[in-house]
Amino acid sequence: MSQPVNFQSKLNLFSEHWSPKVIAEMNDYQFKLVKIQDEFTWHHHSDTDETFIVLEGSMSIEFKDRTVHLSEGEMFVVPRGEEHKPFAENECKVLLVEPRGVVNTGETGGTLTAENDVWI
Amino acid sequence: MSQPVNFQSKLNLFSEHWSPKVIAEMNDYQFKLVKIQDEFTWHHHSDTDETFIVLEGSMSIEFKDRTVHLSEGEMFVVPRGEEHKPFAENECKVLLVEPRGVVNTGETGGTLTAENDVWI
Repeated sequence: MSQPVNFQSKLNLFSEHWSPKVIAEMNDYQFKLVKIQDEFTWHHHSDTDETFIVLEGSMSIEFKDRTVHLSEGEMFVVPRGEEHKPFAENECKVLLVEPRGVVNTGETGGTLTAENDVWI
Repeated sequence: MSQPVNFQSKLNLFSEHWSPKVIAEMNDYQFKLVKIQDEFTWHHHSDTDETFIVLEGSMSIEFKDRTVHLSEGEMFVVPRGEEHKPFAENECKVLLVEPRGVVNTGETGGTLTAENDVWI
């Protein structure tokens, strides 16, 4: 990395939902931008926590026993192993932080599974 | 973590410069808020990259062979082992991401060394 990464410039490069794009790496962790809208699938990540930072809009993360609401300028760390389902009524732009190799649908798979390690 | 972390609410809790405050953990990594102004000290971190995300204002990171300028909504990953010196003409609010235990002055020490693992 020789130049800073500008979130807005990178967000302008794609429009699809639920398809995280890698913008930077720190050690063996990746920073990914994703645009989300409507419901994702219930899933969990057995081996890692997962960080959501809302850059624009608002979203929710449904857990089995509660729902966490996130607005612009807020972050939340989903604990490893905990079933969750992200949701956004309107398009929301999110910065994810997680180890390299994490698949978006975790152990669940299915049609919402995005190609991994896609850089923009 | 049961509630989201709001960056602005946390930034309102302190005013000192160059004194990172932990706001969240993901696995063995920490998210820290820091307010910076004027020059920091030359230093490096032998064992880890270090991520800067500018939340408000602008800053620079001076390296031995170049200077990187960062504005609000931009991020930069300082490679492990590389000597660098952060700088901000006016107060700048930054989100740092780095492994638990990283000392702000790296291998350099000195009066700007902040207490580690201070949560707000």
